[in-house]
Amino acid sequence: MSTGITAPAGFTAAATAAQIKHSGKLDMALVVNDGPEHNAAAVFTRNRVVASPIKATRAAVADGTVKAVLYNAGNANACNGVQGDKDAAASVQRTAEALGVLSEDVAVCSTGLIGELLPMDKITAGVDALASSLGDHGSAAAEAIMTTDLVAKETLIEADGWSVGGMGKGVGMMAPSLATMLVCLTTDASATPEMLDEALHKAVAPTFNTLDIDGSTSTNDTVLLLASGASGVTPRQAELDAAVLAACANLADQMQADAEGVTKRVKVTVTGTGDDAQALNAARTVGRDNLFKTAMFGSDPNWGRVLAAVGMAEADMDPERISVHFNGQPVCVDSTGAPGARDVDLSGADVEVLIDLGAGGEGTATVRTTDLSHDYVEINSAYST
Amino acid sequence: MSTGITAPAGFTAAATAAQIKHSGKLDMALVVNDGPEHNAAAVFTRNRVVASPIKATRAAVADGTVKAVLYNAGNANACNGVQGDKDAAASVQRTAEALGVLSEDVAVCSTGLIGELLPMDKITAGVDALASSLGDHGSAAAEAIMTTDLVAKETLIEADGWSVGGMGKGVGMMAPSLATMLVCLTTDASATPEMLDEALHKAVAPTFNTLDIDGSTSTNDTVLLLASGASGVTPRQAELDAAVLAACANLADQMQADAEGVTKRVKVTVTGTGDDAQALNAARTVGRDNLFKTAMFGSDPNWGRVLAAVGMAEADMDPERISVHFNGQPVCVDSTGAPGARDVDLSGADVEVLIDLGAGGEGTATVRTTDLSHDYVEINSAYST
Repeated sequence: MSTGITAPAGFTAAATAAQIKHSGKLDMALVVNDGPEHNAAAVFTRNRVVASPIKATRAAVADGTVKAVLYNAGNANACNGVQGDKDAAASVQRTAEALGVLSEDVAVCSTGLIGELLPMDKITAGVDALASSLGDHGSAAAEAIMTTDLVAKETLIEADGWSVGGMGKGVGMMAPSLATMLVCLTTDASATPEMLDEALHKAVAPTFNTLDIDGSTSTNDTVLLLASGASGVTPRQAELDAAVLAACANLADQMQADAEGVTKRVKVTVTGTGDDAQALNAARTVGRDNLFKTAMFGSDPNWGRVLAAVGMAEADMDPERISVHFNGQPVCVDSTGAPGARDVDLSGADVEVLIDLGAGGEGTATVRTTDLSHDYVEINSAYST
Repeated sequence: MSTGITAPAGFTAAATAAQIKHSGKLDMALVVNDGPEHNAAAVFTRNRVVASPIKATRAAVADGTVKAVLYNAGNANACNGVQGDKDAAASVQRTAEALGVLSEDVAVCSTGLIGELLPMDKITAGVDALASSLGDHGSAAAEAIMTTDLVAKETLIEADGWSVGGMGKGVGMMAPSLATMLVCLTTDASATPEMLDEALHKAVAPTFNTLDIDGSTSTNDTVLLLASGASGVTPRQAELDAAVLAACANLADQMQADAEGVTKRVKVTVTGTGDDAQALNAARTVGRDNLFKTAMFGSDPNWGRVLAAVGMAEADMDPERISVHFNGQPVCVDSTGAPGARDVDLSGADVEVLIDLGAGGEGTATVRTTDLSHDYVEINSAYST
């Protein structure tokens, strides 16, 4: 039974080992929307240094129509200058020719090392192999886009006569040099590009955008949503929103759980400040603080590091009225240690941190991060060489 | 021969082991300005969560007069609520009584663990011991304020008939939980509080404020400048500026060099952007990026991480025209890898990174940081417990 991107009607996929990954594992995938509709929406990285495939995919999605998406892992095609743009265009062109569609309807996503030219002979051969083996191969595609992911990530949300399938790769919590998050969502609902865009933006904010492992943001991050209309069902916007959100939440959970080099999953929630944007700034400030993250690695209920970190946030706060809970237990009240704070048990794999900034206000936000471990240093200090 | 804070005329100091540090080493110090003038200026942490001694010292310096500074290491007296403020005030009061000065002319600086009450019996006994042993003990005082510093840090800048002495402790690069940077500068020049304030602010910006190890900012950071006027010389502002800058630069160098848990000293310079503030934002963004820092630990010339990091900076840039040099060798030109980039040797202890953002403009800034090593994780994951 299909569980991922090929579960919704109207979609086929293929995967191949094009020898871009040194391991010889699956490293290219193709996702094709067979229609009858070919509507699409996308969300991209906020980084201003963007990879060549991002530029190509932005152009492809601009008119709301995407018929196919080419994926490769092992090479990000980022920071390759004009040649990188040419290689992305050539990949798109080859895919369009192999499928008999317009090149302007083909998107491309890459993940891997920055600054190495794409091996175009392998890409070209890979495209041809993919185009001739399309079928119900969503799971193989999910495997092909993995970099240091330990498990492939798929999701399927069933609605009333239609569904949303998805695959994702995200290694932000383990080897952020490969942090590129690639997500492909497919649905057989009938929905306009505007409906898809609205649903996708609403879904990304509380899911992928709250995964904040080290503040690093990839040059290649891309989330695509493709709609075939093959179910014949046109959901209401709220129904579409709910299904896309559920798919994104499920994939984000899998990304946080797939955490080589990480020993803790840490959820930081901030309340008691002016607005949600301030709360998010404060939650990120704590979630990115290396002292806080190393304390988590040591299962150390060192709430002083939370206060020292949050004091630098751009958020309304009363510095004398900050409170902190670890796993539901108060460790700091009115900016002062609570009885028993040093004895709170943080030895489990999940830690919840609740910070109230004491300024009143309705602002609240949650960020999910991880600890800073020896394996993080090990994995990331020995990558390109 | 005196080399530190007691070298300029008009200053005495003392140090004692008050058993606040578990090691039994020197942990309290007293610096006294015997005049004839008692002018002072100070710079404090930008953190909004500030320790009780910061509040007390702000009040003491407000009128430009400081006659004595009490130091302790081993306990930061931060996040201790009203009791913390009372303890700081009691420390000041005891010192004032012991010296026969007004309590409003006494400053206090603490460094150590956050969230533990000061052991006031030990502090009180320590103050009495210090007040009765004042003399040419600048070096002992410099030793007493150490936390995880490996060496005591002193400086002496000789000018024409006057001098600037100094001591500092700073462990931002090794165990930032103890990151508090405490600096005391003394001069026998005759200078108004306004002159001192101008010289100190000019000196701190390009020295201590460019030391950016992990973005963490202590609740206790304090830099004090005391002037006795005992030389009888009134330098011009520019002369004072130069001497204070030289003293700060020397202490900052010592702080960066004293780097337990660190294998690289990394200097990140940014040019080619709108203004100095933008350049500083970009330099900090790279200097704080864990992927960049782990690459440095691995001696890995992975310039792609520089581009991925700097793309998130709030600075004018041309994303297609960024260039990067490692140790003077071009590794990225026009946002694309330069020939031989992967072979650049970063095995030495010092790495210079030069980033031109390609947007023209006169903005430039330098930040000094370190790599992210196993020892950083080790030291910081096992501290409070």
